[in-house]
Amino acid sequence: MKLHLSSWPEVEAYLKTSRGIVIPIGSTEQHGPNGLIGTDALCPEIIAGEAADAAGFLVGPTFNVGMAQHHLDFPGSMTLRPSTMIAALQDWITSLVRTGFDRIYFLNGHGGNITTLNAAFCEFYAEYSLRGEACPVRLTQNNWWQLPGVMDVCKKHFPVGEGGHATPSEVSVTYYAYPEAIKSVEMHPKIAPSGRFADAADFRASFPDGRCGSDPAQASPEAGARIVEAARTALVRDVAAFFAS
Amino acid sequence: MKLHLSSWPEVEAYLKTSRGIVIPIGSTEQHGPNGLIGTDALCPEIIAGEAADAAGFLVGPTFNVGMAQHHLDFPGSMTLRPSTMIAALQDWITSLVRTGFDRIYFLNGHGGNITTLNAAFCEFYAEYSLRGEACPVRLTQNNWWQLPGVMDVCKKHFPVGEGGHATPSEVSVTYYAYPEAIKSVEMHPKIAPSGRFADAADFRASFPDGRCGSDPAQASPEAGARIVEAARTALVRDVAAFFAS
Amino acid sequence: MKLHLSSWPEVEAYLKTSRGIVIPIGSTEQHGPNGLIGTDALCPEIIAGEAADAAGFLVGPTFNVGMAQHHLDFPGSMTLRPSTMIAALQDWITSLVRTGFDRIYFLNGHGGNITTLNAAFCEFYAEYSLRGEACPVRLTQNNWWQLPGVMDVCKKHFPVGEGGHATPSEVSVTYYAYPEAIKSVEMHPKIAPSGRFADAADFRASFPDGRCGSDPAQASPEAGARIVEAARTALVRDVAAFFAS
Amino acid sequence: MKLHLSSWPEVEAYLKTSRGIVIPIGSTEQHGPNGLIGTDALCPEIIAGEAADAAGFLVGPTFNVGMAQHHLDFPGSMTLRPSTMIAALQDWITSLVRTGFDRIYFLNGHGGNITTLNAAFCEFYAEYSLRGEACPVRLTQNNWWQLPGVMDVCKKHFPVGEGGHATPSEVSVTYYAYPEAIKSVEMHPKIAPSGRFADAADFRASFPDGRCGSDPAQASPEAGARIVEAARTALVRDVAAFFAS
Amino acid sequence: MKLHLSSWPEVEAYLKTSRGIVIPIGSTEQHGPNGLIGTDALCPEIIAGEAADAAGFLVGPTFNVGMAQHHLDFPGSMTLRPSTMIAALQDWITSLVRTGFDRIYFLNGHGGNITTLNAAFCEFYAEYSLRGEACPVRLTQNNWWQLPGVMDVCKKHFPVGEGGHATPSEVSVTYYAYPEAIKSVEMHPKIAPSGRFADAADFRASFPDGRCGSDPAQASPEAGARIVEAARTALVRDVAAFFAS
Amino acid sequence: MKLHLSSWPEVEAYLKTSRGIVIPIGSTEQHGPNGLIGTDALCPEIIAGEAADAAGFLVGPTFNVGMAQHHLDFPGSMTLRPSTMIAALQDWITSLVRTGFDRIYFLNGHGGNITTLNAAFCEFYAEYSLRGEACPVRLTQNNWWQLPGVMDVCKKHFPVGEGGHATPSEVSVTYYAYPEAIKSVEMHPKIAPSGRFADAADFRASFPDGRCGSDPAQASPEAGARIVEAARTALVRDVAAFFAS
Repeated sequence: MKLHLSSWPEVEAYLKTSRGIVIPIGSTEQHGPNGLIGTDALCPEIIAGEAADAAGFLVGPTFNVGMAQHHLDFPGSMTLRPSTMIAALQDWITSLVRTGFDRIYFLNGHGGNITTLNAAFCEFYAEYSLRGEACPVRLTQNNWWQLPGVMDVCKKHFPVGEGGHATPSEVSVTYYAYPEAIKSVEMHPKIAPSGRFADAADFRASFPDGRCGSDPAQASPEAGARIVEAARTALVRDVAAFFAS
Repeated sequence: MKLHLSSWPEVEAYLKTSRGIVIPIGSTEQHGPNGLIGTDALCPEIIAGEAADAAGFLVGPTFNVGMAQHHLDFPGSMTLRPSTMIAALQDWITSLVRTGFDRIYFLNGHGGNITTLNAAFCEFYAEYSLRGEACPVRLTQNNWWQLPGVMDVCKKHFPVGEGGHATPSEVSVTYYAYPEAIKSVEMHPKIAPSGRFADAADFRASFPDGRCGSDPAQASPEAGARIVEAARTALVRDVAAFFAS
Repeated sequence: MKLHLSSWPEVEAYLKTSRGIVIPIGSTEQHGPNGLIGTDALCPEIIAGEAADAAGFLVGPTFNVGMAQHHLDFPGSMTLRPSTMIAALQDWITSLVRTGFDRIYFLNGHGGNITTLNAAFCEFYAEYSLRGEACPVRLTQNNWWQLPGVMDVCKKHFPVGEGGHATPSEVSVTYYAYPEAIKSVEMHPKIAPSGRFADAADFRASFPDGRCGSDPAQASPEAGARIVEAARTALVRDVAAFFAS
Repeated sequence: MKLHLSSWPEVEAYLKTSRGIVIPIGSTEQHGPNGLIGTDALCPEIIAGEAADAAGFLVGPTFNVGMAQHHLDFPGSMTLRPSTMIAALQDWITSLVRTGFDRIYFLNGHGGNITTLNAAFCEFYAEYSLRGEACPVRLTQNNWWQLPGVMDVCKKHFPVGEGGHATPSEVSVTYYAYPEAIKSVEMHPKIAPSGRFADAADFRASFPDGRCGSDPAQASPEAGARIVEAARTALVRDVAAFFAS
Repeated sequence: MKLHLSSWPEVEAYLKTSRGIVIPIGSTEQHGPNGLIGTDALCPEIIAGEAADAAGFLVGPTFNVGMAQHHLDFPGSMTLRPSTMIAALQDWITSLVRTGFDRIYFLNGHGGNITTLNAAFCEFYAEYSLRGEACPVRLTQNNWWQLPGVMDVCKKHFPVGEGGHATPSEVSVTYYAYPEAIKSVEMHPKIAPSGRFADAADFRASFPDGRCGSDPAQASPEAGARIVEAARTALVRDVAAFFAS
Repeated sequence: MKLHLSSWPEVEAYLKTSRGIVIPIGSTEQHGPNGLIGTDALCPEIIAGEAADAAGFLVGPTFNVGMAQHHLDFPGSMTLRPSTMIAALQDWITSLVRTGFDRIYFLNGHGGNITTLNAAFCEFYAEYSLRGEACPVRLTQNNWWQLPGVMDVCKKHFPVGEGGHATPSEVSVTYYAYPEAIKSVEMHPKIAPSGRFADAADFRASFPDGRCGSDPAQASPEAGARIVEAARTALVRDVAAFFAS
């Protein structure tokens, strides 16, 4: 069930059975020579969408521009400052709580979001803690690639060159869902360098084509289908447990 | 061409031919008994997507939660505070400018966004104006239903009961694109009341089922197809003129 | 009755008869070769002041620096960023509500304020909407030149060259109230160019002497008197209706 | 010369002779049983206006709502939060600097503004200091009643009951300029209590009719004329010294 | 009793006897050729620590980076912007109030903090005043050198060259507590210049070695011991009076 | 070398040999029945201080109140909201960069700080990335207990009951440095429960005496000495590597 495709009476009915919602959260940022700029938003959107179809839980709109300051040297990348992202998430969460939700599960597609998203949760809880009021809401985040069993499937398909950014796994997930966007690009070097980074200039200097440690030329819609299948199954279980917590 | 389905080298190539981008901007809010909560985000996304396919311009991610405080008494509605929305738009715009864009066209799907979006433009320009630096960027917004010729098509299909919120026209656009989400609901009264509103409690008191002046039971995917066709054509022209300005 | 010339016991007595107040809101910005920099603040202050004398309602202090970023290339112009203006208006409104007012009517003198002022209203309402509390306060804004009948008088006096900024009508209103500030300046061209603008550099490039579409050399205190008379009469009616709403 | 009554070419000409401006800054707050709510804004406005007429310097718009949280238990009082006031002053100062001013003299009428106004100055300077850039601008504030010689005149007229808030001196200044607003009220007790305060409830508990240590029933337009005369003379000298610094 | 060396059950027990706490507040900024960068934080920390040992009241953590924008041209100086300092102090105060304190005494070591600290108090009170709720909390600040009797001791030891920044008295206090940090530096000129300042560049231009009006070469741990003794005694009395207020 | 005990000429000299600084960052929060409220600030302060003495690098002031909203149900706990903490850290970092530092190493003592501290780093880098300027500064954070070899020592001393909050290891570190603050308390149960938490009420409900999974009754100054020794040695190496990066 997708919030954007539902009417309010349908949501009202849903809330009588569950007060939980899943929010895909990603980023709009370069993903190397053949990866989609929307990869990190699309992956959790795809996985959450299939899981919702399977299990009947509600999926909200995708938080589609995240914290990606380090990618800004590549055309088409976008970022929120962490302070802006915290403010926007406060409004998203507060709105959802206002109309009846008390379990909000963020399915995350971007490593760069993790800390700011957690900070936003603390910002939300802090309002209650500082007022001395018990907060009836629970927030959680999980990266789709860390759902139980998912990384096993990824490694099976891509034992070499999975890397950390613009991975063949995440590119596969998007190729599975958007085959019209498949791009064939030769990678030089085959496996990108790895390492740490600070700001956008530093990132680009270390990772000239945008990849980190990966060989996404291996990506395929078939692998994507398997990964999504594994992630969807795991997500259904994880969400059920969280909503019941 | 969609930013989320493009790679950064594709965007780099695009920027050599055009420095313009279209951002669909909408809202996540109740749209009456049979309208989709995502209506205001989906409509500009659908229209911009088709126009982009036809004309080759670039469409960015949809700004999908807008200023909808007055809808918060209906389940599933979400809002940004105006101050948060201005901050988020600053980051979106600044990011796009940073990687090479200088014409940003917001195709808007929600009346409640208009003033805050304009305020955000002024916030962006003010940074240049206060520094005494000429701003090379131009920002514009247009409501899809006010593109030349669109309202004529809407009125032809719905001479009665178009109204102002949860209109048969906007519901038709979403039914055209998402036929699986069509909902059949009887409306009482047939045409909803009209009027002004302030906060969410006030809105709900005046518009108990969420519609304003409309009869969206008339909505059909066929009408939606015609409206999208008219809007797409007009948008292609409008965007071309803006990018060339 | 003017708040600034009243004592608190007088306001306490007034609040027993009415909980409404009128706030003139304007701008401090260039108004062409012969227009006053305070024009947009002075006009609503003059009109509200006369209407208050006639009808006995309360007028608060003038919000005298508004959103005028596009005028900053002309000496003496001042602006608030939209985000600052929203914050300041929150404090003004919250203060007035705190001491007993629940109908606040902003009489606006500057087109550039409209969207930010509306965004500020939404910011105020959003606090209630997000808390799920009914807001007992109503806010409204009206431009003095759009009060019923006013533009007719303006057009009668200035059938040609009214334009959009530094209009003969607004300059006349200030000349009527401040005859000591009348300035005689020849305009070249007689009627200023019209068009759109973005930031301050863009505005100055398009409108070199600060006027937009107008010939304010026609301004006269006599015309100002007529315009104020029409506006005052219309305002008294409009305010009464709003306070009674 | 008043900014609000000047045209931009007049300000341009003025800037060739001086880059200084005076900003009256006050408050909108109760001033006891017979004092005007606008007292703290009107006093510096009146004094700066007369001094400007005498000496030819430029006076900007009055910053008319200040930091007056402790008065909010009295009808008609208004406040900015300190953080809002700092933000607004940043925009005022930055605007003035942008169009050519580099000496900004705040003539203050409200003790409650002093610390926040100073914090705002530091906020402005800090931008330069953190960037490592020399700031060409100088900001200063002075309370009109502390200009050399003014308190002598006040004490001569009101040897007893001057007090600290709603003083006969400040009330006299407004009565001199606005004789139509003179109010005759008996005070009980004749001299109000003195002491410290925290929030609005605390203030009202300690100072039930709003006065602190004063007997403003003594106020007269004649005394006001003398005080303004002394203040105007002192201000002319003080401003000249500051502009020349 | 020091908060940082206490357990929460000890604080719980303390709160049954007193709801007051002392917060040392200082700055991290240059203090001339022989003064410690931590001087303004260390002095109130030392004095409050000794007084707490003597009298048994509770001392919280030191707010150790303050408003010192004017010192940023000297290595090792740090500042908070006033707006940041207000926000941080809100959180400190709100936290303390949340867990049971209602009298918070800031012992200040830095003149540059005074106005921003007062603005922060007003920001805190304003929340209550705008809500129309009586605030049960009282906040106060005092500079350690202005505690009764302290300046007499300072003047006795340093009749000449006390000055205003990097004074022999404050340097002595730190030398007393940290004899390992005593530095022997010849001063040229013996007594530093005095005067006003704006931003960091202006400060350094006027005070090339960082001192203002002082000769801190006179500093000694022996003088420091006397000063601390006087300050400690006075503080015990002042805190007791405030906690009992 | 400690910034607070240095003079600015000493820092100037230091900057000729190194542009790096270490900032201890902790929290002020309950640490169970026998742990110090300052534990998380004191531990990194102690370790960094000893390492600085050994290796000669510079240690700045301790950021002593962190993100601890979940502890606010225990007396004496304090928190910054994440958004405030980001703002404060921006000013700390910007100040240090302003006066010459380009490697800032945060030695962290509190798990709750990690995400917000990382978000603050991103906020800092984002300013450069959005401007399109290469950032010359590098920021890093490390938890003292995760320095190479430290946990081995902890586990050797406390094979059982180390837990996650109010651990015997951290309590030992503070007991080593502040033997006067050693507290003897019996723990019930011996080992505290483990688990997750959200806001302060939730934390207290799950962890009634404030400990998580630990038995800090085992803490001893002797163990603390060993742990500090291990941490100091590791830190010297880690800092050297970072400063040389």
